[in-house]
Amino acid sequence: MAYDYLAPLRDMRFVIARVLGAPVSWAQCGPLADCDIDTTAAVLEEAARFVREVVLPLNAVGDAEGCTLHGSAVTTPAGFGAAYQAYVEGGWPALPTHPDWGGQGLPLLVDAAVREMLSGCNHAWNMYPDLLHGAYETLKHHGSEELKSRYLADIATGRTLAAMALTEPQAGSDLGALTTKGLPQPDGSLRITGSKIFISAADHDLTEQIVHLVLCRLPDAPPGSKGISLALVPKLLPDGTRNSWTVDSLEHKMGIHASATCALRYEGATGWLIGQPNRGLAAMFLMMNSARLHVGLQGLGHQEIATQNALRQAFERVQFGKPIAEHPAMRHLLLRAQALTEGNRVIAYRAALALDEAEHHADETVRRRQSQLAALLTPLVKAQLTQQAFDTASQALQVFGGSGYTRPCGVEQTLRDCRIAMVYEGTNEIQAIDLLQRKVLADGGAALALLIEEFEAEAAACCAAPSLRDFGEALQAQCAAATQATQRIAAQAKTDAQAPLRAADAYLQAFGHLALAWAWAASARAAQAEAETDPAWAVAKTERMRYGLQWLLPAAAGCWQRATALDAALPALVAPA
Amino acid sequence: MAYDYLAPLRDMRFVIARVLGAPVSWAQCGPLADCDIDTTAAVLEEAARFVREVVLPLNAVGDAEGCTLHGSAVTTPAGFGAAYQAYVEGGWPALPTHPDWGGQGLPLLVDAAVREMLSGCNHAWNMYPDLLHGAYETLKHHGSEELKSRYLADIATGRTLAAMALTEPQAGSDLGALTTKGLPQPDGSLRITGSKIFISAADHDLTEQIVHLVLCRLPDAPPGSKGISLALVPKLLPDGTRNSWTVDSLEHKMGIHASATCALRYEGATGWLIGQPNRGLAAMFLMMNSARLHVGLQGLGHQEIATQNALRQAFERVQFGKPIAEHPAMRHLLLRAQALTEGNRVIAYRAALALDEAEHHADETVRRRQSQLAALLTPLVKAQLTQQAFDTASQALQVFGGSGYTRPCGVEQTLRDCRIAMVYEGTNEIQAIDLLQRKVLADGGAALALLIEEFEAEAAACCAAPSLRDFGEALQAQCAAATQATQRIAAQAKTDAQAPLRAADAYLQAFGHLALAWAWAASARAAQAEAETDPAWAVAKTERMRYGLQWLLPAAAGCWQRATALDAALPALVAPA
Repeated sequence: MAYDYLAPLRDMRFVIARVLGAPVSWAQCGPLADCDIDTTAAVLEEAARFVREVVLPLNAVGDAEGCTLHGSAVTTPAGFGAAYQAYVEGGWPALPTHPDWGGQGLPLLVDAAVREMLSGCNHAWNMYPDLLHGAYETLKHHGSEELKSRYLADIATGRTLAAMALTEPQAGSDLGALTTKGLPQPDGSLRITGSKIFISAADHDLTEQIVHLVLCRLPDAPPGSKGISLALVPKLLPDGTRNSWTVDSLEHKMGIHASATCALRYEGATGWLIGQPNRGLAAMFLMMNSARLHVGLQGLGHQEIATQNALRQAFERVQFGKPIAEHPAMRHLLLRAQALTEGNRVIAYRAALALDEAEHHADETVRRRQSQLAALLTPLVKAQLTQQAFDTASQALQVFGGSGYTRPCGVEQTLRDCRIAMVYEGTNEIQAIDLLQRKVLADGGAALALLIEEFEAEAAACCAAPSLRDFGEALQAQCAAATQATQRIAAQAKTDAQAPLRAADAYLQAFGHLALAWAWAASARAAQAEAETDPAWAVAKTERMRYGLQWLLPAAAGCWQRATALDAALPALVAPA
Repeated sequence: MAYDYLAPLRDMRFVIARVLGAPVSWAQCGPLADCDIDTTAAVLEEAARFVREVVLPLNAVGDAEGCTLHGSAVTTPAGFGAAYQAYVEGGWPALPTHPDWGGQGLPLLVDAAVREMLSGCNHAWNMYPDLLHGAYETLKHHGSEELKSRYLADIATGRTLAAMALTEPQAGSDLGALTTKGLPQPDGSLRITGSKIFISAADHDLTEQIVHLVLCRLPDAPPGSKGISLALVPKLLPDGTRNSWTVDSLEHKMGIHASATCALRYEGATGWLIGQPNRGLAAMFLMMNSARLHVGLQGLGHQEIATQNALRQAFERVQFGKPIAEHPAMRHLLLRAQALTEGNRVIAYRAALALDEAEHHADETVRRRQSQLAALLTPLVKAQLTQQAFDTASQALQVFGGSGYTRPCGVEQTLRDCRIAMVYEGTNEIQAIDLLQRKVLADGGAALALLIEEFEAEAAACCAAPSLRDFGEALQAQCAAATQATQRIAAQAKTDAQAPLRAADAYLQAFGHLALAWAWAASARAAQAEAETDPAWAVAKTERMRYGLQWLLPAAAGCWQRATALDAALPALVAPA
């Protein structure tokens, strides 16, 4: 059986239209008001065709061939450049960008569904365009008029690609420790000097121009994270000459072999400040938040492709006289994968819709609230979807048995490729701290209260329908557990500043169960609306969601217990001999 | 930081002597009575040196180089052959085999600790000798005198290596579906014809002679698993000529690149029956049980090497002004890894000790009981240790961050290599069914009752010590939960034969928590005995075990709940379009 991908168009449409009612929200969002579900469906159908025909076939090729470095120039695998050209010609990079800059101005939620497809089918190829939107947002909001007029249209349409140059050997999670220098020049530019590592897509042959967004320190900048500035450093200078930076080496990695992970040296390269001096991290965080949602969508794409291939295998493979799909152990594996994938899709798309509303909704109160919700959901989406992608890919490998461990099967590449997403753009441990400390506790629980309000409304609606009462009650119980746990941690934090750090990981896992309980309930209720037009589909959907409720949600109690085990000891580690 | 390995000699000795009191048991086991803890410690120290100096350095080399096929002959990576020769000359294959056949007759538990070291340091290399003991046991118990005199001494000392030829394309988990033929010849031999896949170490250049234990069907054999016979098929026939089988290809795999995974064709190869016609599976299961314990030990070895390297990294890597070992998120990751690794070591070694007592104890009642316990613990050890090795290796990768995803770091190889162990020798899903159906329910809970009795004695001992009361009470609660859950499933199974199949996966996970609760309690209590000689070590050990109790055991309740969710629906899967 060849590893294949059929975009889950039916489920995407269901989540967007029925579960989230996105077109109703978009109608209140001036520039998005024209986007109805038929437009959305047409775009996604076209994307599905492009992804399957053009991008998917390069996945195994890219894994086998990898990137190569000739001098300081990176060569991508055969076919990558042509596929990217077709991607630009198809207008895909411009999907969510503003018409002022050549974009199509479609909702981020539509773009999110496209990104899901791209990452599942070819994570490594998708690494090149996946950073575009973050660069676009950063430049649009913080760039000078001159920089925007020079670069923004090309970025908004994908003619120029972008890279984020953050990490240095001594500065991984701790960006405040970075030392790359930016020396102001009389002409207003900066001379950038320093080394960076793990820079994805810093060089390649997909586009002529590449811009780096580089974190650096200006002279006399305060130490730590308050002294960091952001610079735009192009590959080609305005006069057409090559800028002074060098790719020293490419990393040999577990997966995403076709994504060029570069060690870079800036040797007095020319750049220009984006935003205010020493406010680089704030500008960068705009890019990082977009990037973190995208990373969550990478997880979702991997989860989907692993699940659907395992499902096909389960119906093709006969053991003990019947397809293995009939064996309870395989049913558990696959129903779990489906319940998590479909639930996570609802959560991720909800975050994307929040970004659309935060940007465009006519009502300022709605904009503010949706912005809070997007910020709250982002670390959850990033951490949960990437962790579960890895778990699901591993479970899918079990369905294939021994073949799953071999290269030609495809699922082991998914497992290797998706693993990086738990690390980059802030490790999942960093996301857990971000969720609990910055997004839940820092505003006194205000954003959380908004989310719980939305979830409780769903619970009430389910409780009102006799056939969905179990969903409603379970969701209500999760809301109560979340509220209570948060209050307990907040109270403890007053006298014990480390308490949230100890609780963060368990809190994120528990919070993920809460969000899934909501997603399953909302999906089951929305499925009732399709019960007349497609009863078999509606029943099966409800059964998968109920599988989540009955078999997966019981793990939530243990997570809440750990999150509130405030007296439990977390001893110091003993140094190795 | 280079990926390194220091055998956990201190912990091994502690588990063997203090937690399990193995030397006291061995004293009742005639041929093992001479093995005291000093002998054991000396052997393990020597093994640790050999493994670190000879086997570990070939791990990355083997991964990069892999095996190659020239014609039908497999070449292993540079250095593998010399290392194996040193291994044979050091007497390591002969450690647990009988002196009658050139062995040293040491306990299987001692051999288990050596296997743990070997697999963690170089899983692929260890694949070659790791099957020896199963082949030895099978031949010793079921082989004719002639076969034994021809092959057993060379197998017992490692001069000949062995392979298990079970799987065929249509017969993976379902061995009853295999079709390889064995045609009796007038001289008493069999002519073997058929194809096998995924045969580890079927050919290589480590030894001249290789014997295959081949499952096949005699003419007119009954269909299914009751018509399967076992044959010994050597590479070199008694007259020195090459037997008629061919390696058609090697698999390209996610990991263990240096282990030759062969597709084989037997073309009228000469072999001889082992054991009775049509009773091949029974003979093979002896080999499989030994192999399954070894696979669990592979998981343990991987868990150990990943954990200790992550710990070193956590003390070397400075972020936010201090070693990351001080950050709560990293402490959680590492304490979890340590609590699981050390707990799993107790469980695996307990199973190995049970095998020693089952074979050699003077008291027949003890032999029978320990045999039941070994059978009960084997599927747990296989499934839990391999699953947790994968989880722990993934967590260890998080500690390394971006570097962890790159080849030179080493931890990504551990993650890739260890993944196969969840699949082969019976997938972990098969182990879960084996545990619940064959080992727990089939004897009416008798074996389980023996284990619970042992665990309850430990719980009582802990409850009697004020400082260990929490361990004792938690273990008591787990024993009660296990007993109750098992009774409920057994009752349900009377009218609902599928119930155990639905519950099996959750039951295994819950059962694993029970076993860990015992291991943590027993270790904490045993550590008190070292409180005077090495108080810092005893305190730290107890803290790690208590971490398991407080932070990991809360997940057990959700597992027991799922295992007994007898009314929860497990809907049929919907076939893909």
